[in-house]
Amino acid sequence: MRVLGIDCGGEYTGYGLVEMTSRDRLICLTCGAIKLSTRDPLPKRLYSIYSQLGEIISEYHPDEVAIEDVFYAVNAKSALKLGQVRGVAMLVAASAGLHVAEYAPLTIKSSVVGYGRAEKQQVQHMVTQLLELPTPPEPLDASDALAIAICHLHTSGTLHKQRAIAH
Amino acid sequence: MRVLGIDCGGEYTGYGLVEMTSRDRLICLTCGAIKLSTRDPLPKRLYSIYSQLGEIISEYHPDEVAIEDVFYAVNAKSALKLGQVRGVAMLVAASAGLHVAEYAPLTIKSSVVGYGRAEKQQVQHMVTQLLELPTPPEPLDASDALAIAICHLHTSGTLHKQRAIAH
Repeated sequence: MRVLGIDCGGEYTGYGLVEMTSRDRLICLTCGAIKLSTRDPLPKRLYSIYSQLGEIISEYHPDEVAIEDVFYAVNAKSALKLGQVRGVAMLVAASAGLHVAEYAPLTIKSSVVGYGRAEKQQVQHMVTQLLELPTPPEPLDASDALAIAICHLHTSGTLHKQRAIAH
Repeated sequence: MRVLGIDCGGEYTGYGLVEMTSRDRLICLTCGAIKLSTRDPLPKRLYSIYSQLGEIISEYHPDEVAIEDVFYAVNAKSALKLGQVRGVAMLVAASAGLHVAEYAPLTIKSSVVGYGRAEKQQVQHMVTQLLELPTPPEPLDASDALAIAICHLHTSGTLHKQRAIAH
């Protein structure tokens, strides 16, 4: 199973594609961050996210998409900004007919680091270990996106096993 | 000049297409509201807005798009919801290569009713008068969207005239 994790942000939108092999090994296929030029008008920036995420989906054919669920935000202004990027990220997935799973930040960190209040650097360190990467994924938005994808693979993997045992 | 006004909302997204003739007459070409089923998952709802607004642009070929600028929101949660819809609306315009103009609610109401704190019903009444419609546009999201389009036509019309006088 292949999962595209997306870490939505006002300035950088991280992405990370992780595959779980039949032997439960996790492999990073690609990761990075889409930087938005603050000079460009907002519609153009959103179009840039839309087209770049669309290209990643076309190239790597993920089975599902996972994003961070947001329950709180610093304030209404930053929530609006984040929402705009988040709406576009979900739209890209829906346009490709892909299911979108949402996870709370606490769940993502717990799943990867084993501790819900972990720092971004700890997430980056554990992602590097879990994916057996030669160097830590940069920027932090990219490692956050990989963490989201890993969280979804862990969760859906556990669900599949539970179903298999139940039947 | 043809302008598509979009009134973004969590449940209804209003749209209104207004043309200003060479004699400064305002004509409503179409208006309505896209209702989002709360039963559908969010990505599907956003895709519905994206495809329906895209169809309106393909059919009516507006020259520009106008939306409401949001400075405040009730809370971060509603700002996030609104942002998601707003991001998709701006993306539709950018995908079609159209410029997006943003207006504050106060500016829109002042432009149509002559009073920045006007109620939605007053906006609906004035939109009906200005566009010489036989019946008031329904729902209120549709009349709000028409008001946004009229505001942009008024503003850009004034700017053109000012430029013409200046040269």
